Amino acid sequence: MVVGQGGVADTASLCGSLNGAASAIFLVTGGMDNKQRGVAYPIIQEVFNWYEQTALPDYRPKNLKFEIIKSVSRSTLCHVSVTRWCKAAGFKAFSKERSERCAWLTASVAKYTAELLNNYADGAFKMAHPLTAATKTCRGCHDKGSKLENTRVMMDCGGCHFTPNAKTAHPKF
Amino acid sequence: MVVGQGGVADTASLCGSLNGAASAIFLVTGGMDNKQRGVAYPIIQEVFNWYEQTALPDYRPKNLKFEIIKSVSRSTLCHVSVTRWCKAAGFKAFSKERSERCAWLTASVAKYTAELLNNYADGAFKMAHPLTAATKTCRGCHDKGSKLENTRVMMDCGGCHFTPNAKTAHPKF
Repeated sequence: MVVGQGGVADTASLCGSLNGAASAIFLVTGGMDNKQRGVAYPIIQEVFNWYEQTALPDYRPKNLKFEIIKSVSRSTLCHVSVTRWCKAAGFKAFSKERSERCAWLTASVAKYTAELLNNYADGAFKMAHPLTAATKTCRGCHDKGSKLENTRVMMDCGGCHFTPNAKTAHPKF
Repeated sequence: MVVGQGGVADTASLCGSLNGAASAIFLVTGGMDNKQRGVAYPIIQEVFNWYEQTALPDYRPKNLKFEIIKSVSRSTLCHVSVTRWCKAAGFKAFSKERSERCAWLTASVAKYTAELLNNYADGAFKMAHPLTAATKTCRGCHDKGSKLENTRVMMDCGGCHFTPNAKTAHPKF
């Protein structure tokens, strides 16, 4: 799973911690069996939604190199997650602080994934982070079974598709 | 790699064909060995850039269910790739035509990946699809070593960050 580094081979697409978590969940829940896919996918989606919606990293090592502040990524993408953190923290994208932040973040994702898999093993998995109300509204016109049905998405639409000055207006693309 | 389906467990983030290709390239080139990472990553980046820049699917099976038109995704993301194709083809995101398109597209990516790995085996790999000039311009202010250095990215910036009416203006987010 090292290939997930830097949003897959440094391309800054999907965050590598999520790519790794998705594979681990798929393996542990037996998603390779078609019948188990409906079990595996909601757990993966829960991790992805939690990552978008939560102030992270929420893991903090005992021996600190330096303090790392939290930020909400609103996206599962590496470059969006990094940019939002850089803006909040005031550090550059290739700083040692950002590198440390991504290490803590990866620990956070691994921890949350393990907790969900423990819940699953206990027969007690429940989705705690559903899609946002705004995203559900977008999907009402654009996703499966809608009038337009011109996309498919469980990412937080507003994480990318709204400008800071037009949060309530319909985005232009 | 089935977990990559629908942009990882139907979340519509990174296109599953690319996630699979990246893993295959990483394995075949021995990217798990730190010293080989500089060999693996450019081949993966070449597939990602080619996917963004090329009219796809360029694979066409002999026994057609129906004809599938090509489109340029300008993004490695599932939902963006699907939306651009839906717009070009006039079919819905959960239509059987879209499903067939993604099957052809996956074949296209697998074929191109195999060709690049054959070139690599012959010692003849060369990047044929570098980042676009526009993306390089963006990176000049926003990526590693720049004044702002507030993100990291090899995705085609213009695939998302420009509205149709403001292609030459600096995007607002």
